[in-house]
Amino acid sequence: MTERNVYNEADFLAGYLNLPRQVHGLSGAAEWAALRDLLPEIAGRRVVDLGCGLGRFSQWAAGQGAASVLGIDGSVEMLDRAEAEANSPKIVFRLADLNSLDLDLNSLHVDGQPTDIVFSSLALHYVRDLDRLLSIVAAALAPGGSLIFSVEHPIYSAPTTQGFVEVPRGDRVWPLNNYLIEGERLTDWFVEGVRKQHRTLATYMNSVIDAGFRLERLVEWGPHADQIEAGVGSIDDLHRPWFLLVKASLAAD
Amino acid sequence: MTERNVYNEADFLAGYLNLPRQVHGLSGAAEWAALRDLLPEIAGRRVVDLGCGLGRFSQWAAGQGAASVLGIDGSVEMLDRAEAEANSPKIVFRLADLNSLDLDLNSLHVDGQPTDIVFSSLALHYVRDLDRLLSIVAAALAPGGSLIFSVEHPIYSAPTTQGFVEVPRGDRVWPLNNYLIEGERLTDWFVEGVRKQHRTLATYMNSVIDAGFRLERLVEWGPHADQIEAGVGSIDDLHRPWFLLVKASLAAD
Repeated sequence: MTERNVYNEADFLAGYLNLPRQVHGLSGAAEWAALRDLLPEIAGRRVVDLGCGLGRFSQWAAGQGAASVLGIDGSVEMLDRAEAEANSPKIVFRLADLNSLDLDLNSLHVDGQPTDIVFSSLALHYVRDLDRLLSIVAAALAPGGSLIFSVEHPIYSAPTTQGFVEVPRGDRVWPLNNYLIEGERLTDWFVEGVRKQHRTLATYMNSVIDAGFRLERLVEWGPHADQIEAGVGSIDDLHRPWFLLVKASLAAD
Repeated sequence: MTERNVYNEADFLAGYLNLPRQVHGLSGAAEWAALRDLLPEIAGRRVVDLGCGLGRFSQWAAGQGAASVLGIDGSVEMLDRAEAEANSPKIVFRLADLNSLDLDLNSLHVDGQPTDIVFSSLALHYVRDLDRLLSIVAAALAPGGSLIFSVEHPIYSAPTTQGFVEVPRGDRVWPLNNYLIEGERLTDWFVEGVRKQHRTLATYMNSVIDAGFRLERLVEWGPHADQIEAGVGSIDDLHRPWFLLVKASLAAD
């Protein structure tokens, strides 16, 4: 039986494809500038885009002069659109579910060569066995290779109810609960029952460390004051981060 | 003008000295087992206990066969008690405020020798300039040296009100707000106006990395099920961590 993938569902796509980040590409993703700041030099490097969706990062990396770009996604609907949009012969797309066992070392290589940079935007929070995936990523990278990823922040993914509330004293608060209870979370996002994996920030960090990486930078991302002024998020977003951005690398030896 | 240090105030001490962790020593600190698991071998190593308070960790480290133990604290009241209790000629105590400029490289050395292990329990959240302190710690450590510390978890230190509330839907929640707004927090803890520094988890991690350390392990600590059953904390403590525990090390070169 094939696992449900909401990225193949018409009702989900109707909403998802109208998000600013899909309509406007990377510049429509409010955290893109912060994520880009974590990237090493792209020119001449082999790049993997894990959970590439419509392939906008893949396109950008090709435009930056990447030697090759491999976009991987589990949704046929996403990859069809990504291939139709792709603007460079250096980009290759592959269909693979990050949760399934058909993703192995070779599926992260282009022409049998190890990769230099693995990038993943807002995909790893769907992955059940993160340790396994990170060990494959580490094995697929060349010495000195980098992993840069973003996920929904654990403070965001934890609670029963993901919305601000007013408490008796009058403060607006993020109603945090179940932070230390890891596992599946079902949320309604364009469709009902979108499955994500909640893990604590420490679990993300320790999984990256245990896969052999050295942590280089963490960003607990929320919109900046000037973005809030421009209508991206609101003043409430100072109360808790949206995303966790991470840069890690392998020893150069 | 000397800065206020509540650890010298009679009203504060009346409450603080009756905490389980002061009455019973390390075994009265619910997170001690998790913190101990982060420690490298102590025997034969030079150890610094930063913010040693009553010196219970210093005593324990001496008992484990440390070559030397240097306990540093900014409170005369704490150090007087620590010296009265000290049970080993290997332990030396020094009065130094972690915020003040009188803490330098030499003040972390015993007999002019670099240290092997710097330990700090629930002290760094009082320190305003963490980057400066960590750079001193890194310089005072021998190659391969370790830093192990605990602080109040940023999720705990952030909110306007540090207490669980019930929200309209009926959930018990930790009323998180102001997480991304770093800086001073005034809390009432035995006395009014205890000053702590709130910084995000990312800031803690990046400060450790920028000081030259490699992050080895993070623990977002809350009481375990068997501790909760024994009356340490409550089921609410699954909603958010109490403490952040960190292990980091310098390259061995």
